[in-house]
Amino acid sequence: MASGADAPLPRDARDLAAPLGPVVGMVGAGQLARMTQQAAIALGVELRVLANARDESAARVVADVRLGDHRDLADLRAFAKGCDVITFDHEHVPTEHIRALEAAGLPVRPGADALVHAQDKLAMRRRLSDLGVPCPAWAPVDSLAAVEAFAEEHGWPVVLKAVRGGYDGKGVWVCADAEEAGEVLATGTAVLAEAFVPFEREVAVLVARSPHGQGVSYPVVETVQRDGICVEVLAPAPGIDPEHAANAQRVALTVARELGVTGLLAVEMFQLADGSVVVNELAMRPHNSGHWTIEGSRTSQFEQHLRAILDLPLGSPEMTAPVVVMANVLGGSDPDVFSRYEHVMAHDPRVKVHFYGKRVRPGRKIGHVTAVGTDLEEVRARARHAAVYLATGEYV
Amino acid sequence: MASGADAPLPRDARDLAAPLGPVVGMVGAGQLARMTQQAAIALGVELRVLANARDESAARVVADVRLGDHRDLADLRAFAKGCDVITFDHEHVPTEHIRALEAAGLPVRPGADALVHAQDKLAMRRRLSDLGVPCPAWAPVDSLAAVEAFAEEHGWPVVLKAVRGGYDGKGVWVCADAEEAGEVLATGTAVLAEAFVPFEREVAVLVARSPHGQGVSYPVVETVQRDGICVEVLAPAPGIDPEHAANAQRVALTVARELGVTGLLAVEMFQLADGSVVVNELAMRPHNSGHWTIEGSRTSQFEQHLRAILDLPLGSPEMTAPVVVMANVLGGSDPDVFSRYEHVMAHDPRVKVHFYGKRVRPGRKIGHVTAVGTDLEEVRARARHAAVYLATGEYV
Repeated sequence: MASGADAPLPRDARDLAAPLGPVVGMVGAGQLARMTQQAAIALGVELRVLANARDESAARVVADVRLGDHRDLADLRAFAKGCDVITFDHEHVPTEHIRALEAAGLPVRPGADALVHAQDKLAMRRRLSDLGVPCPAWAPVDSLAAVEAFAEEHGWPVVLKAVRGGYDGKGVWVCADAEEAGEVLATGTAVLAEAFVPFEREVAVLVARSPHGQGVSYPVVETVQRDGICVEVLAPAPGIDPEHAANAQRVALTVARELGVTGLLAVEMFQLADGSVVVNELAMRPHNSGHWTIEGSRTSQFEQHLRAILDLPLGSPEMTAPVVVMANVLGGSDPDVFSRYEHVMAHDPRVKVHFYGKRVRPGRKIGHVTAVGTDLEEVRARARHAAVYLATGEYV
Repeated sequence: MASGADAPLPRDARDLAAPLGPVVGMVGAGQLARMTQQAAIALGVELRVLANARDESAARVVADVRLGDHRDLADLRAFAKGCDVITFDHEHVPTEHIRALEAAGLPVRPGADALVHAQDKLAMRRRLSDLGVPCPAWAPVDSLAAVEAFAEEHGWPVVLKAVRGGYDGKGVWVCADAEEAGEVLATGTAVLAEAFVPFEREVAVLVARSPHGQGVSYPVVETVQRDGICVEVLAPAPGIDPEHAANAQRVALTVARELGVTGLLAVEMFQLADGSVVVNELAMRPHNSGHWTIEGSRTSQFEQHLRAILDLPLGSPEMTAPVVVMANVLGGSDPDVFSRYEHVMAHDPRVKVHFYGKRVRPGRKIGHVTAVGTDLEEVRARARHAAVYLATGEYV
């Protein structure tokens, strides 16, 4: 027969497979879209991704890949055509483009009015302060004099944050004095000033909210950061007082409701010595602090996000084991991660490996591992062993 | 910018994304390949499928889809080019074609010498009998006289089975008398005769074996059949005596080793009143009796199959809960399954829904649901409620 077996399916043929379920268009094709595809497969949801390049993480594992620029409204409009709902793998779509899609009648979840608070840190601080949500002291600053005035009141160090575009520690500068602040301002980046919070640890709360208004909260987790990058997530946050946990969840659910979030909301928080929390950052999408839910919860954050944006009833956030630890695999110097599966899988037949199909670059998040069990130290050691070995080939 | 956002990625662009992990070619694009994609995404394995049509279950969710005929050697060769290992979603590839691929130096797992025992029931019965594995009494038959001679010795009913090509109850005829047997023979299908086994229940054991020779067994499960189609799987098999369970697992692991299986082997068995088992069927691929492992085991059968065929250390088959029940969703008369998610998900936030992206036809397996918990009757009722409602909109 005439054969198509020697080449991938061409576009004209692909166009003909009519969807049997809802079509979700996710802007961005990183690992969050990649893992969303796993959940979409189970639910019979047809996931379409907008990728910048053909070798991006999710573009490798999704049938319906569109190439385009998420900063270009024409590309976004073309991408959205035929989608039942539009959502995001990242926060980098210009807010005005999202408003334009909404004005055209497209369900975008989260919508621009909510998402702007995850895109613009000044908008976020203003709104959360209005709502009475605990935040660090903050102020808009547009000059060194303004930073110095802020420091006068709140002391050094002062944390300067890029108003837009920061992630993984990028766009955050802890300035010890006016000289360091001056260097940041000299880059021309629009920033705001925040008081340095003497926190005990960082925690995060992941919640979901549907257009109907249903909300669920996952347990509070501890996020362990190194150089501004999350390296480990401990679920639940070890030793957290139930009242403090309930309060942190209440804060996150309140923010989701008041901001009109549809889909997931991750609230990163500082926990202080007295157990209280102040909000650090918001993200409105699946989040690194929720990767543990794939094995560790009855409903993964990726399935939950799909259910929420499709306005389906939300899934149970119940944990599948008393302790779950997720450790990120950060790229080392050796690109051949796959060659290190052998040891990790033989060493621990229960550890779960997630590799994102991304080229290895030092420090880049290229995968994660998850361990579940009952004893925190044991589970944490297993996760750390696997993550470090996958990255570097070192035994820890 | 010039935009590709209005159309799926064309083939020339797709061709350029170099794989970062091993490329597994799976012949067939049904739900087994579809669910294998979920495991491949986590492991960073690049899954390629050979589909007959663009709208098949797995072709909807895999980036690298090739169209071709699994009965055509040229198509198979073209498909296999660039794959690190070839495996199967079904048993319908002609054995001689598999031998030809192997002769060309391609790793095919399972190989033809093993797989023939899941393709050819006469070959299977001969080999298992030689190994001393308990089977029903059987005989090759090519005439009504031969069937009658068999019945003389073993009594009616006689079970006639198609030597090749049967599945889901198709190709199995329980003949009450010579007249019924004559009707089967008149169709011209090559059959063998088996004695009817007065079983108490049907059970199944799923094992995996790697080229290195590592083997693991999942717990013995009970498979509940209706009209020859599996409707429910109860894990572990309720009330099974630990010695009987260990014996059934030993049988399955022995068959895997002696037949040289690489990948998964599902052994369907009849359990008799005395607790002993006789082997009914073999399958060498992910199997309906193992769908419960997606949520119910630390290692899903789909991940396990990939690990086995890639000769990676096998994952733990440990259960994630004391009781897991999987119920198949069999197509009803209403094609709009998705409209019934609302009730099922609101009714039971913990039930897991799997929909295969297949058009609804009455009786067709279009999805499954899984419930986990501690009490068999409660868990079973939850799974059954969800499966029946999704199929029919009826409350049970």
